[in-house]
Amino acid sequence: MDGEDECDHGASQLAEAYTNTQSCQTDILLMPRGQKRGRGLRAQSICPQLLEMVLHLQQTMEECFLQLMTRYRQQDLMLEEQRLNLQQRHSQVIYEQEALLIRLMSQLADILQSRSWSGLGLQLPPCSMDTGSNAGGGQGAHSPRHPDQIPPLLSEFKTAFVIHDLSSRGEDISDFYHSEFQAYNAYHGDKYHEDNNTLGFINLSTSENKLCIDLMTKRLSRSDMNYIEDALLQYCDWRGQPFLREEVARFLTYYCKAPVPLDPENVVALNGCCSVFSALATVLCDVGEVFLIPTPFYGGLAFSSRLYANIELFFVHLDSEITGENTRPFQLTVDKLEQGLHEARLKRKKVRGLVLINPQNPLGDIYSQDSLKEYLKFAERHKLHVIIDEIYMLSVFDKSTTFHSVLSMESLPDPNRTHVIWGTSKDFGISGFRFGTLYTRSKAVVTAMSAFGYLHSISGITQHKLCRLLQDRDWIDKVYLPTNWSRLREAHKYVTGKLKALKIPFLNRGSGFYIWINLKKYLDPCTFETELVLHHRFLDNKVMLSCGKSYMCKEPGWFRLVFADKPHRLKVAMHRFCEVLQEQKEELTVRLLEDAQKE
Amino acid sequence: MDGEDECDHGASQLAEAYTNTQSCQTDILLMPRGQKRGRGLRAQSICPQLLEMVLHLQQTMEECFLQLMTRYRQQDLMLEEQRLNLQQRHSQVIYEQEALLIRLMSQLADILQSRSWSGLGLQLPPCSMDTGSNAGGGQGAHSPRHPDQIPPLLSEFKTAFVIHDLSSRGEDISDFYHSEFQAYNAYHGDKYHEDNNTLGFINLSTSENKLCIDLMTKRLSRSDMNYIEDALLQYCDWRGQPFLREEVARFLTYYCKAPVPLDPENVVALNGCCSVFSALATVLCDVGEVFLIPTPFYGGLAFSSRLYANIELFFVHLDSEITGENTRPFQLTVDKLEQGLHEARLKRKKVRGLVLINPQNPLGDIYSQDSLKEYLKFAERHKLHVIIDEIYMLSVFDKSTTFHSVLSMESLPDPNRTHVIWGTSKDFGISGFRFGTLYTRSKAVVTAMSAFGYLHSISGITQHKLCRLLQDRDWIDKVYLPTNWSRLREAHKYVTGKLKALKIPFLNRGSGFYIWINLKKYLDPCTFETELVLHHRFLDNKVMLSCGKSYMCKEPGWFRLVFADKPHRLKVAMHRFCEVLQEQKEELTVRLLEDAQKE
Repeated sequence: MDGEDECDHGASQLAEAYTNTQSCQTDILLMPRGQKRGRGLRAQSICPQLLEMVLHLQQTMEECFLQLMTRYRQQDLMLEEQRLNLQQRHSQVIYEQEALLIRLMSQLADILQSRSWSGLGLQLPPCSMDTGSNAGGGQGAHSPRHPDQIPPLLSEFKTAFVIHDLSSRGEDISDFYHSEFQAYNAYHGDKYHEDNNTLGFINLSTSENKLCIDLMTKRLSRSDMNYIEDALLQYCDWRGQPFLREEVARFLTYYCKAPVPLDPENVVALNGCCSVFSALATVLCDVGEVFLIPTPFYGGLAFSSRLYANIELFFVHLDSEITGENTRPFQLTVDKLEQGLHEARLKRKKVRGLVLINPQNPLGDIYSQDSLKEYLKFAERHKLHVIIDEIYMLSVFDKSTTFHSVLSMESLPDPNRTHVIWGTSKDFGISGFRFGTLYTRSKAVVTAMSAFGYLHSISGITQHKLCRLLQDRDWIDKVYLPTNWSRLREAHKYVTGKLKALKIPFLNRGSGFYIWINLKKYLDPCTFETELVLHHRFLDNKVMLSCGKSYMCKEPGWFRLVFADKPHRLKVAMHRFCEVLQEQKEELTVRLLEDAQKE
Repeated sequence: MDGEDECDHGASQLAEAYTNTQSCQTDILLMPRGQKRGRGLRAQSICPQLLEMVLHLQQTMEECFLQLMTRYRQQDLMLEEQRLNLQQRHSQVIYEQEALLIRLMSQLADILQSRSWSGLGLQLPPCSMDTGSNAGGGQGAHSPRHPDQIPPLLSEFKTAFVIHDLSSRGEDISDFYHSEFQAYNAYHGDKYHEDNNTLGFINLSTSENKLCIDLMTKRLSRSDMNYIEDALLQYCDWRGQPFLREEVARFLTYYCKAPVPLDPENVVALNGCCSVFSALATVLCDVGEVFLIPTPFYGGLAFSSRLYANIELFFVHLDSEITGENTRPFQLTVDKLEQGLHEARLKRKKVRGLVLINPQNPLGDIYSQDSLKEYLKFAERHKLHVIIDEIYMLSVFDKSTTFHSVLSMESLPDPNRTHVIWGTSKDFGISGFRFGTLYTRSKAVVTAMSAFGYLHSISGITQHKLCRLLQDRDWIDKVYLPTNWSRLREAHKYVTGKLKALKIPFLNRGSGFYIWINLKKYLDPCTFETELVLHHRFLDNKVMLSCGKSYMCKEPGWFRLVFADKPHRLKVAMHRFCEVLQEQKEELTVRLLEDAQKE
């Protein structure tokens, strides 16, 4: 390859620029990361701009090499692990290939069924293959098409799915999206409706609260919502409209019980909490650097990290078992955080922060004030940012449980590195509004985050409605919250009643819209493969649940079941759920009998 | 550095995996990029998953090295350029440092003036420095604060602006944001108002159409806009609500004069055209790869490329001069594109696409059908994607000019690599709605783009309003467009009249909201430094214009003046504009006289 000379040439230039380098290229490239920009320079008179570039280059190279080394180490670890668990690994590989095949087949089926290919391939030459009359092809296509324009199905499929034209990351994202959202997209194309589509999907997978849409629709229909003024129709402050940030500050001060009024200048309002997380990950963490995160956790964070930010979430795996240290299942302790950090550093990861979700998703756990403080102190000790997602803070429906926001603390261990996320998607059941907000005392973070308003801003008219909503304490406190909590309690009671009848273990928590349930007894062997098979069985019976693997749970067999749906749908969904488990149980029994007969 | 061993170890593993590699590490790393995954493997029996990882690793390393080599070459080129233009460069470096200093001072001033620091630093210990009574400090702070909590100003400033806690990219973004949006943010904090704030900023910089807000407000106030249904309040299809995508397809079919109806399955709707561009750049281009783009061009694309996608825009510089080849100023020709591509490849850039804006921003040019076809054929020859931004397609107010959308073409040279962007921000003057849409025939691109709906989606209620708006052809054709065009013509006539009176050269085009004007005669010497000084003079006189450097214009002295503002504001703005130029002219005259006297 002819790039070699230039490469050496550049390296020798670099070598000259530093006093503490030796003649060997590797030494230059592997300069310690602690080395600050501009330090240790021999040629002080060098043009500052050029110097900056060289330093930037050096930093980039360091990063490249660190990344590479990290990957090598991962390879080594993988190899070792593989030697140990070859059998297990092998079956997983086969399984994953199967899953890929199923996905591709399903994509093909989608195309054939949706006939969405009708608008494609107009430029394709006529083909001799007689596939134009293929069932599901030209017939019934929605868009008009000249008979001589019907392209061959195979070519068309190729034209539609030639993905070598995407960037590598584009391909990765596309693939990841397919695997994560296939069921979700199927649901959106075929939703259950009690009158029109009784065979459609019921979604107990996506965490939405559908219990108070009536109240919300009524509130949003009041005349104060439909105000329009010039500023709402034009570009705004990228941090969000000042009136909205002021209202968010007031709202959080009140509901988070902040000891002093929160400052609107510390608020950034974007179109959803995952947008906030994506932007935060970008401004706090460079590519390949990591945030610690306890598992199981909300998978949307993994997706958000991957689309743009390209950071790594380093898992601190929690166990379901109750032991000396664990007084409750999946308990987060500082020891585990310390251990996680240690492991990450052993693997040469640069750890930049800790991500917490409180109330936790999918567990429903609420951190005590003391635990919370300990986690924050752990982060402070290690100079880690803490991103804390409190998006379910007002969805604590159990009267005996009290939620404590980090914003309620009299003093934060490291206020400039503590960043709180909240939004209206969950607590007000309006995920379609696309609103998420950041509260941070770090002006540097606010400034850097503001830039992302350019890509994540909310329509002005929606910002107005949100402001009105957050302002209406009377309605929130007297109408919305009491009704919402009472309905959540009812739905929770109904579903947990069913679970108890089936003797299915679950975490009985009083927050969020979901229950973390253990279906291990329906899986034999209990692996992530059989977990996925059961997941697909639910889908086949038109009920969606999320499996534990989507939450990076270490142990197979766990599922998250969303109960915050209207009684009539919940009833049908639970019926379908029970049907699948009954079927699964019968199969297991038959297999047991067969095995017994063989012996 | 202790990472060395692993690095070598990993490389030797790689070496074993390929048949066509030699023992030298460099050869492996610089393997030709054409090498397809999985080809040329010796160890076919190797575990596929591991193989995939190794191949991925190899690809990453190749990319890293290609990037590094590219940077080395840049350094070389820079060095050479520096030798040639050392004097010029030096003054620019000094200027840039000055600008940075001014920016930092201004940040400090902002903090002191806004008193926004009142919510900060509650955790700081009491300090012996007597700075608590500093003017602009504690006095008049908006948030309550205990007297003993007033922190020292310097510490507070440090606390607020310690930016070492951001990632490197976070720091870069923050800095870039400050430089790009400082005036914009000042404007949002101090807008001109004819009654309340006659000394406020008038913005002839941001490309907004403020001429038809009355019509739009009236239309948006009709009862059909305020519909609410469950689906609008919940998570939706990440590509955008089906009803909106259908309406967009119908709308574009009609207004772009598409030969056959466009397909809603080819539509992706996100929260703004820059979001569409950011996501497209990510799925079509890997980090460091490039899109060609003719200059001058809309700076928002550069900003969008930088926030997340981290791709490079490679400039094809156009000249103002009319020569044999150029029959009009800044004319784009295929020769220039070919030359640009050649230059990029000489610099070892991987060119993935071409970005065009039609009607052009900031020039106002409209590409003829023939030119457009030639550009597309150029892209097809070189297998480049074409991203074409047609966001001003309905803002062609000159009756003698006809706009041709690429979607109107009977056949596209490369339909799967042609991606059209449009939105309502400009043509309907509702930038605050945050709506941008992509039309592409590539299913692969649609799928990959869908994933980004997760971070760029629009609130459901806004999607409904947009759908209603696009649907109302009667209002659009009979009320909105004729009125809008007529008002644009009037405003354009008013401003061009003033420019003619001042004998300021400008491009007299009939599209967009802006005029590309040449203020060279007010600059002596005419450099980007004096251009910026003039820009600041306008700001000092509370009128905002954008300078040519923001559009990557090769020649200093050009400005973009937005004329689509209401008559009363436009009049004041033009008065302020003329004042500055008069002052500038007087200064130049005095200087000339002084110089003459010296001689």
